[in-house]
Amino acid sequence: MSTALIILAAGKGTRMNSDLPKVLHPIAQAPMLAHAMHAGRALDPDQTIIVAGHAAEAVTAAVAEIDETAQVVLQTEQLGTAHAVDQARSALDGFQGDVVVLYGDTPFLQPETLERMIAARADADLVILGFQAADPARYGRLVMDGDVLERIVEYKDANEAERAISFCNSGLIACNAKLLFDLIAKVGNENASSEYYLTDVVELARAQGCRVTAVACDEEETLGVNSRADLARADAVFQSRARAELLDLGVTLMAPETVYLSLDTFIGRDAVIEPNVVFGPGVTVESGALIRAFSHLEGCHVSRGAKVGPYARLRPGAELAENTHVGNFVEIKNAEISEGAKINHLSYIGDASVGKRTNIGAGTITCNYDGVMKHHTEIGSDAFIGSNTLLVAPVKIGDEAMTATGAVVTRDVEDGALAIARTPQVNKPGRAQKLMDLLRAKKARRDGGDA
Amino acid sequence: MSTALIILAAGKGTRMNSDLPKVLHPIAQAPMLAHAMHAGRALDPDQTIIVAGHAAEAVTAAVAEIDETAQVVLQTEQLGTAHAVDQARSALDGFQGDVVVLYGDTPFLQPETLERMIAARADADLVILGFQAADPARYGRLVMDGDVLERIVEYKDANEAERAISFCNSGLIACNAKLLFDLIAKVGNENASSEYYLTDVVELARAQGCRVTAVACDEEETLGVNSRADLARADAVFQSRARAELLDLGVTLMAPETVYLSLDTFIGRDAVIEPNVVFGPGVTVESGALIRAFSHLEGCHVSRGAKVGPYARLRPGAELAENTHVGNFVEIKNAEISEGAKINHLSYIGDASVGKRTNIGAGTITCNYDGVMKHHTEIGSDAFIGSNTLLVAPVKIGDEAMTATGAVVTRDVEDGALAIARTPQVNKPGRAQKLMDLLRAKKARRDGGDA
Amino acid sequence: MSTALIILAAGKGTRMNSDLPKVLHPIAQAPMLAHAMHAGRALDPDQTIIVAGHAAEAVTAAVAEIDETAQVVLQTEQLGTAHAVDQARSALDGFQGDVVVLYGDTPFLQPETLERMIAARADADLVILGFQAADPARYGRLVMDGDVLERIVEYKDANEAERAISFCNSGLIACNAKLLFDLIAKVGNENASSEYYLTDVVELARAQGCRVTAVACDEEETLGVNSRADLARADAVFQSRARAELLDLGVTLMAPETVYLSLDTFIGRDAVIEPNVVFGPGVTVESGALIRAFSHLEGCHVSRGAKVGPYARLRPGAELAENTHVGNFVEIKNAEISEGAKINHLSYIGDASVGKRTNIGAGTITCNYDGVMKHHTEIGSDAFIGSNTLLVAPVKIGDEAMTATGAVVTRDVEDGALAIARTPQVNKPGRAQKLMDLLRAKKARRDGGDA
Repeated sequence: MSTALIILAAGKGTRMNSDLPKVLHPIAQAPMLAHAMHAGRALDPDQTIIVAGHAAEAVTAAVAEIDETAQVVLQTEQLGTAHAVDQARSALDGFQGDVVVLYGDTPFLQPETLERMIAARADADLVILGFQAADPARYGRLVMDGDVLERIVEYKDANEAERAISFCNSGLIACNAKLLFDLIAKVGNENASSEYYLTDVVELARAQGCRVTAVACDEEETLGVNSRADLARADAVFQSRARAELLDLGVTLMAPETVYLSLDTFIGRDAVIEPNVVFGPGVTVESGALIRAFSHLEGCHVSRGAKVGPYARLRPGAELAENTHVGNFVEIKNAEISEGAKINHLSYIGDASVGKRTNIGAGTITCNYDGVMKHHTEIGSDAFIGSNTLLVAPVKIGDEAMTATGAVVTRDVEDGALAIARTPQVNKPGRAQKLMDLLRAKKARRDGGDA
Repeated sequence: MSTALIILAAGKGTRMNSDLPKVLHPIAQAPMLAHAMHAGRALDPDQTIIVAGHAAEAVTAAVAEIDETAQVVLQTEQLGTAHAVDQARSALDGFQGDVVVLYGDTPFLQPETLERMIAARADADLVILGFQAADPARYGRLVMDGDVLERIVEYKDANEAERAISFCNSGLIACNAKLLFDLIAKVGNENASSEYYLTDVVELARAQGCRVTAVACDEEETLGVNSRADLARADAVFQSRARAELLDLGVTLMAPETVYLSLDTFIGRDAVIEPNVVFGPGVTVESGALIRAFSHLEGCHVSRGAKVGPYARLRPGAELAENTHVGNFVEIKNAEISEGAKINHLSYIGDASVGKRTNIGAGTITCNYDGVMKHHTEIGSDAFIGSNTLLVAPVKIGDEAMTATGAVVTRDVEDGALAIARTPQVNKPGRAQKLMDLLRAKKARRDGGDA
Repeated sequence: MSTALIILAAGKGTRMNSDLPKVLHPIAQAPMLAHAMHAGRALDPDQTIIVAGHAAEAVTAAVAEIDETAQVVLQTEQLGTAHAVDQARSALDGFQGDVVVLYGDTPFLQPETLERMIAARADADLVILGFQAADPARYGRLVMDGDVLERIVEYKDANEAERAISFCNSGLIACNAKLLFDLIAKVGNENASSEYYLTDVVELARAQGCRVTAVACDEEETLGVNSRADLARADAVFQSRARAELLDLGVTLMAPETVYLSLDTFIGRDAVIEPNVVFGPGVTVESGALIRAFSHLEGCHVSRGAKVGPYARLRPGAELAENTHVGNFVEIKNAEISEGAKINHLSYIGDASVGKRTNIGAGTITCNYDGVMKHHTEIGSDAFIGSNTLLVAPVKIGDEAMTATGAVVTRDVEDGALAIARTPQVNKPGRAQKLMDLLRAKKARRDGGDA
């Protein structure tokens, strides 16, 4: 059975107190919406439709980055959840399968829960996701008769017996596409807010004899994010889960609570992560690599046996081969570092490739930007780049070549050659003392003048 | 009604196990005493008098830094709290208004609480601050008759009924200045410790027919700091409150528990703070700025749209205009960075100004210190500073000027000019291999000699 | 009475899901085994014998690093704890004193507990360590009759009354060496697992009329580490204890939960540690030193009045004398920094000595590695090393000597001399603008070509 997702993401999120639409606020360095889309991907959907409204342009751009096959439809007026789902009608014209409606601001939903909703469709026309609420407060109650969901009663309309029910409505629905849109067409807005509520499809479905059921999940999965404090808590919940998963996989996190992970961080078994490491999006670390304290990784790949940090910054496109060393105060960007190469101190290597076993001295800089364009630096194998070498790209250093300390290298250096660019040292005896005396006298005059 | 504050800060704080007087130990990077003074400022006092005793010189110096209008009086002998307050008598000679007595080691007091004490003075001659103690332990009990505070009974003198009272004495008092000093003059020291207790003024006031009342606050506000562990907990309480306030204001803190704030940190709405950022004293960050992980800011200003870090260190006097970028392993001190300027890698910019849209290459250093004096570097707009340029101050780089990679710039560069200071590169074919062979042979000889 | 330790460390630790043997997984940057050995050292043992099995080679190497007097014996087959202890028989041949058997994977054992076990030997032939279990689960029960341990009953063999006992067996034993090995020789393996259990010596000892007793410790001390999550929790417990001890000693930890300590970290009274500092093994910090945020220290010594960081990395062999300053993005390795010397910005000082009051400019690098060997740099007192000086070791800079900004120093500089190595600056008027125009045109052509 084919499936389509409709993800509602039109709200402003007033309580976020932000110019950024709520669903784009980040959790684990990915927009909240990406978490919902990530969960939905478990159903291998034929179509993913995002209903955008507030700041739709920004939402559309973000969706394109997360999943370019996803489609954005617009809800220009905010007339309720049924109206929001209805905006996907033409995008799903002719679609024969199931639709699952979920929300861009409930980032904790587990893929398994969606799978169970779809499985429950075998015996029901319409499936609602419910949860046992610790404090049912003002959630809508799910009135069940065995497996059958009889109706959803809003708190304000509930009698005492109904208020005692703790099985509540999450708002998620799974249903055949055609049936869902037929039901939605019948939803009215004769209520206090004049909104079209998606919840009303349950009553309409029951009225035309459909079988409606409910599937239960943990309350935690249904928690929404409505404020920055919620957002921070959501991030903390994500981190705590993700760290526990890594520990289970056989990763050593010396101080798990100080390691910050992204939605897509991958770390292999027997890798060791020291305290205070931040993993931005797009990082894979292979088994047995060591990531030392205060390192910051984004969009990079670290191979088996590599040692990174402390204070290493790996930016997008950094590819570290096996047994490479990247040390303190070193920034690597868009650069391939080959097996056994070492860049241990205070360097910037950007738009470059470094050959096997090559040693890059402290203070080396690839001068990749000329003010207008970026250029590439290529360094061969077994080369030795002297400290503070400035490699003015585009430039190529051969295998087993060397550069002298402090050389500004503007022309290619052939294999086995040594590049020098240095002014001879001259020592001026006694000059330092004289200079200091001069400077001190000058300062005394100046300070005297100030007084 | 005018108000004066008397803040008692004479104690040593033996349990701190420190050479530093207790009230100067820092919470949120400000001396504990500054927190009490900060709370007191809410009353807009005419005079603030700090009673110093232990390490009075250090306390005096600190007070001058916190609030230069505050006055320090000395308590040369530690003869009790009434005696301490009495040291402020001549400083307040002729003062007609109210006095509030508070303590340098209770940093959690809320300004609103002081305001309520002053408000309560409308109906009472003397106002005591009390709190409902979770565990009254050995605090003095406030025996109330309706709104009237009848007396304060110390634990050891209390009968069973009085011991059952959980409303306890915080030690804070608000009172007309003249009345307070008249009462204090009558306080005796006939007790086990031979000390003059401020608490005794309550009984003396009642005896002469004054109306005494008590105002209640949360117990947390009255907690004192007596050990390093208390100090650490106090800091944690401060951080937790300050982070929550920022979240409420619409600031994104990705991992709030890893962001360390100071007493005076200001961050605007929609600013994003990544994990592991330390804000020292005197930082303002405008709306929409991004402070990336592992950044450290002190005494600086970051404008709208600026991007800072990761691993950026902004020191006092760093002024970042809109849309500036300061990247990794970059230190900025006493420097004005104009709109759109970028300093992205491994640089030190101190005592300088950088013009609009100027790009500072990796490894650039302003050589601001000649061993005796500091000098200024001025860089114009739309300039391009090549990687590893060394700007020997005082020096001026014009608008749209460039410096070549690795240039040591000692003379001014006019607008649109290019400064070069570079030795031509020479490649010596085959020399690198020979050199390596030589070094390896040398090492073999040396290692052989060792064996 | 002389004592010998037998520490069982032969297990694989399957649930660790690791290639590293369990006892080598680190807690507070020291192998778990080191913690057990550390506790055992309190008994001042004559011999320490580690029974290794799984990955014995790695364990042997680690033991040699922790305590070179410790002996490793092999258990080639894993036939139970009695069999493991039996492997130490010949190593202890003729030893007359007491043996204490402990475990490489219970890192929380307190030295005092071991001392109490030995003390209890005065009145008993064999002493077992027990603990009151919060949840006795399936631990063996210690059936006591007053001070006498009658027997240990495994859960599966226990009757209802015995199951109600909450005093449980930790597995630790103290016993005269000869008696222990005599008893072990009698232990059989007629049980479900066909293993030789050390626990069985209790019954055998009782049968031959020995007096057996049990000593109690906190359950926490007996907790073992079986998974990465346990390991992380063990580290957290260690950190929490170690931080509390430092606070008690009068150290200021601004945010204790962000300071990561090692087993052997020593910090003096009135030292101040800012947030986010990592102490690797072998660090001593004297009273009154300041370690600023984001610093990383290993194998180094920081003296009174020194200021370190933020972002300072001190590596093994860094010796900072009184009142030295090491600032941001500075790496110090195997270098002696004398009183009052300053290295404040972006530098690498390795294999060096720096004299008193010497100032090292930003961007200074000791070029200590020639691709084959490491060399030493010696800098005198009151010297001034200009920014971005490259000191090509071996090289010596005299007292009161100076180096000019950007100098590559390959030859010694005598006392009071100034070393210069710089190409004169040439300004090319209008050249920057022309160059930019050229580059922009080039880019336009390239981008045009792309389209």
